[in-house]
Formats: sequence, structure tokens, C-alpha cells
Amino acid sequence: MRAVWLEGRGFEVRGDVARPELAAGEALVKVHLAGVCSTDLEMLQGYYPFNGVMGHEFVGSVVEAAGETEWIGRRVAGEITVYCSKCAACREGLTGHCEQRSVIGLIGRNGCFADFLALPTRNLHAVPDGVPDEAAVFTEPLAAALEIQQQVHIRPEMRVLLVGAGRLGLLIAQTLALTGCDLQVLVRSPRARQLLAERKIRTVSAAEINPHTYAVVVEASGSPEGFSIARQAVRPTGVMVLKSTFAGGSGAHLSSLVVDEVRLVGSRCGPFEPALRLLERGLVDTHSLIDGILPLERAGEAFEMAVRPGVLKILLRM
Amino acid sequence: MRAVWLEGRGFEVRGDVARPELAAGEALVKVHLAGVCSTDLEMLQGYYPFNGVMGHEFVGSVVEAAGETEWIGRRVAGEITVYCSKCAACREGLTGHCEQRSVIGLIGRNGCFADFLALPTRNLHAVPDGVPDEAAVFTEPLAAALEIQQQVHIRPEMRVLLVGAGRLGLLIAQTLALTGCDLQVLVRSPRARQLLAERKIRTVSAAEINPHTYAVVVEASGSPEGFSIARQAVRPTGVMVLKSTFAGGSGAHLSSLVVDEVRLVGSRCGPFEPALRLLERGLVDTHSLIDGILPLERAGEAFEMAVRPGVLKILLRM
Repeated sequence: MRAVWLEGRGFEVRGDVARPELAAGEALVKVHLAGVCSTDLEMLQGYYPFNGVMGHEFVGSVVEAAGETEWIGRRVAGEITVYCSKCAACREGLTGHCEQRSVIGLIGRNGCFADFLALPTRNLHAVPDGVPDEAAVFTEPLAAALEIQQQVHIRPEMRVLLVGAGRLGLLIAQTLALTGCDLQVLVRSPRARQLLAERKIRTVSAAEINPHTYAVVVEASGSPEGFSIARQAVRPTGVMVLKSTFAGGSGAHLSSLVVDEVRLVGSRCGPFEPALRLLERGLVDTHSLIDGILPLERAGEAFEMAVRPGVLKILLRM
Repeated sequence: MRAVWLEGRGFEVRGDVARPELAAGEALVKVHLAGVCSTDLEMLQGYYPFNGVMGHEFVGSVVEAAGETEWIGRRVAGEITVYCSKCAACREGLTGHCEQRSVIGLIGRNGCFADFLALPTRNLHAVPDGVPDEAAVFTEPLAAALEIQQQVHIRPEMRVLLVGAGRLGLLIAQTLALTGCDLQVLVRSPRARQLLAERKIRTVSAAEINPHTYAVVVEASGSPEGFSIARQAVRPTGVMVLKSTFAGGSGAHLSSLVVDEVRLVGSRCGPFEPALRLLERGLVDTHSLIDGILPLERAGEAFEMAVRPGVLKILLRM
């Protein structure tokens, strides 16, 4: 089969990668569409010690499922973390934090920039008929956006700041807007500003942010500057949600958090079923985030497009 | 001016009611549209000891505002409770529970089924330009729906049951659906079922409700039977939100709540600004809830329509 293979910092589109062999409980998924995520771009910079097939955002259909024939032919999105069920974390129900976990396209398991992908059927979620592939491929990042509302009670009357409105940020902006909260988004790109304005979501400049006034601040810029702005904005007893990994935060930061009784919440993957429900209900726009759909063979070109400032979602079609 | 005047159980449309005189801090609002609420219908049954102008859901425009000229000409919705700022409840910020409160069209203060209405400017909320009168008139009940999310953290992965989908219930169904939660609505009317299906909101029959499995149950039917179903449905440690007043609940109910550690939350008026934000963002459909818009003179006919089973919102135009 064809696949985008990462080796160190280099990748190539290969035509001779073996189809995945299924372990017990696994299904073989024929990938329809896959999304290029900022994490994929960071991998190309060598930030992850991973060799294998890249990619973790996808929609596809099940072609084999040993012993679970009801899955055959179904259109699916898939949770990216494969867990063991036996370690201490799994036994406490924290399967996303499994000590033995593999993650497709990221840790010890081939990903979805390929014709086929293997995943346990317990990782799969059926895509409702009314949700086209081009929307369903956003299930994983939309679930990650919703994880914020799993973790933090966003009340309709709260003032909430979102720092950063890139690929993930524009999904977070939309899910936060659904709460009715007084949402303000710090954004630089004129295009993102325009997309938010069309949805009546207020954008602000750094100068317009009133320090220490936001009940909840979501940091989704992934930059040290974004972190500083977020820290300044949150009010005493407020919550800072860190939605992007970045190497920052000093001891000074941490002690000021104690003084102000600010709660810091790290936020990663989220729940798939609610994401699919929002897509089915037509409550989140993904269409206008798509900046290109390229065939798998042109993955190199897709990565070059995705890395350009202001470019949002690039999809690969198998 | 013209007004719908309630006296005991009888009402009449009068043409000779004096325009309200403004107290300090009050504005005179020319009413454009007003909504008939189930509470108004209960008043006609004599359930409330109120004499005066009926009505509490409205949109209008400010024509006088002593000393606060910036309000003149603005289109507004208005919070219905007028508070004193001095009592113990007000001093704790619980102005909606003011010990001296009056409530338009309900307690000691004339309402909005009239050409004009007086309200303190601090009760007013400007309606965004993009929100037509026919939507803005739903601000008050939509705010009441959102009060649930002010009080209870509805997580995207939660299974939530809504019992009852009438005028208010259909707004609650829509605001709950925005959370992405696994929402199920117990509904009898085929029309409400159809409206919910169009929004991909799942409806269930009483037989389909799995006992003791819902994290949150919202009782919006106002019937003892609805309360019983809700009580059956909520899981141990879950939350029951009571969104309608009804004379029920026995000692047996209360002690079972303790055993199951169920939390009971009474829920009344809610926040206006988030309601207006959802209307501006086009996230709640009010249009299909309107079953008639009648001139004020035909209030009697409007009440007769509103009381019929299955009829949703009837509006009065001034």
C-alpha cells in the first residue's frame, strides 16, 4: 500500500509499505481522508522520536474486523491512543494516559497517511450518515476542543479569552461560542479574524485585553508570548487551559499562580461522540477551514502549504 | 395607552390605561412585540394574586430615560425582576432574589402587554442589530434555558434527559444540544418531535428511558408524572434540574434523594447577555416556534390559541 513514511526528519511517500496485520480486536480501516495537524509539522522538525507512517486525523471505512463483522463497511473516525487495559492508569479508567500506550502516527504505531490503518475496534466511532468525510475528518481536533468543556465548567455569563486562532483555535473558538459565554479571541491573522467575525465571535488585540479579568483563558497559540498574555489576562481564582504543548513556564510563573489561586489545566485529546454529535447537528463549521485537498502522493506539497503562516487545514485524500 | 389588564381571573384589553410614570433610573420602553408564556396562561386561571398589565417577555425601544440619554432609541430586551439594592439578598449579589422585588406582569408591577412599559435602565439589554424583533422577543425564555448551564456543569460526554418539550422545553433542548452532550428528550407532541429531529436531537418515549442512568435530568413538563419519570431516570449522584413550578414532591421522594445522593436544583430566570449572544450567532432557532403574531387588541384570541395542546409561541404586536 501507499504511505507517508517518516524516518528521522525526512519523509517519503512509499508505494511498497506492507498492509497492517491485525492483532486481536483490531479492524482494518481504508482511509478516505486525513488531516495535517500542527503536530505532524513539528514531527518534520524532528521533535518526536518516531519512525513509521505519519498522521492521526482521519475518516475511513472498515474493510476487515476479525470477529466483529458488524463494523464491516461502516464509516468511522478513530481515537488515536491505543491502550493496554491492564496498567494502573487503565485500571483507574484513565486509558488516555495508559502507561503502555501507543498513539497512531506519533508513538510506536503506524498512522493514517496511508491507504490502510489498523486500530482496535474499541477506538472506532461510527460517523453519522449526514456528516460528509470532509467534516468527519475534523472529529479528532474537534474532540480535543471539546475536552476543555469536559474539564472546565464554562458558564454562559463568564468572560473567556482564547489566545490563538489557528487550525485548532478556530475549532475551540466555535465550541466555546456555543456556550453563550462572553468570548474574546486574540488573533493576528486577518483571515481568522474574518472567519470569527462571520460567526459573531469577538476578536481583540493584545492592547484591548483587560488584565486579570477573564474567568477562563485558553492558551492555544503554543508560543511563550501567548502564555504570558494568557497569564496576564486570567483573573484571580480563574482557570488557564493549556491547549498546546510548548516549552515555557518558569518558577516565577508558578509561584504567582499560587498567590492568585489560578488553576492551570493541561488539555489534550477529547471525547469523539460529542464531536460527532456537534458535526451532525451542523453546529460547527469545518468547511471554511479547508485550504486544500491533495492526493496522498503530493504529501510533500501538502506539508509545504500547511506550514505557511495563515494556512488552515490541508487534507490528504487516499 | 392600550394594555391587557388582569383583574382576578378576568382580563380585558383597555384603551385608556395611563402611560407609566418613570421613577428615578427608569426608562420608558415602547413595546414592539411580546410573548405569551405558560405563566401568563396560569395567571388567567387565577394562580397568581396579581392585578395590572400582564406580560413579561418583550422587545421594544427606549423612548425616554431620565438622565441616561444614551439609551434613547435603542432596541432592548429587559430583565423582569426589579430589585432594591438594599436588602440582605441584594447585598449578597442575589438581586434576582431581592426581598422587596417586583416582577413585571407578575408581582406588583405592570407588564409588557401594553404600548409602553417602565423598567430601570439597569434591567435593559441592548439587542444586537442582526437580531430581529421576532427573535429578540425570546431573550427572556432563552435566558431561563441558559440558567441551567449557569448552575450545572453539563459535560460533552454526559447523558442528559429533558422531560417535556413545550415552549420553554424546545429552547432548553436547543441550548443543551449546543454542549454536544448525549441529549435525549421525552416528548409527546409529534410536532415537537419533528422540530427536534430536524436539529438531530434524539427523542425518546417513556419506555425507552433506562432508569438511573442519566447524569443530569431536566424536568420541564410541569407535571407530577414528569417529575416521577425524571426522578426514576437520574443516576445516583446525578442532578435533577426543576425548570417548572409544580406542586409535587413528597417526603418519600426527598429521603430517596438522600440515599441516592441526588442533587436537586431549582432553576428560574437566567442571564440575558448570553441569550442575546446565542441569538446573534444564529445558534438557536426561534422562528419555527412562532405559531401566531396577533395585534394587542386580539389578546383574548391569542390566549385561546396559546392554551391549545401543541401550540408553541404566540406573540402580541403593539
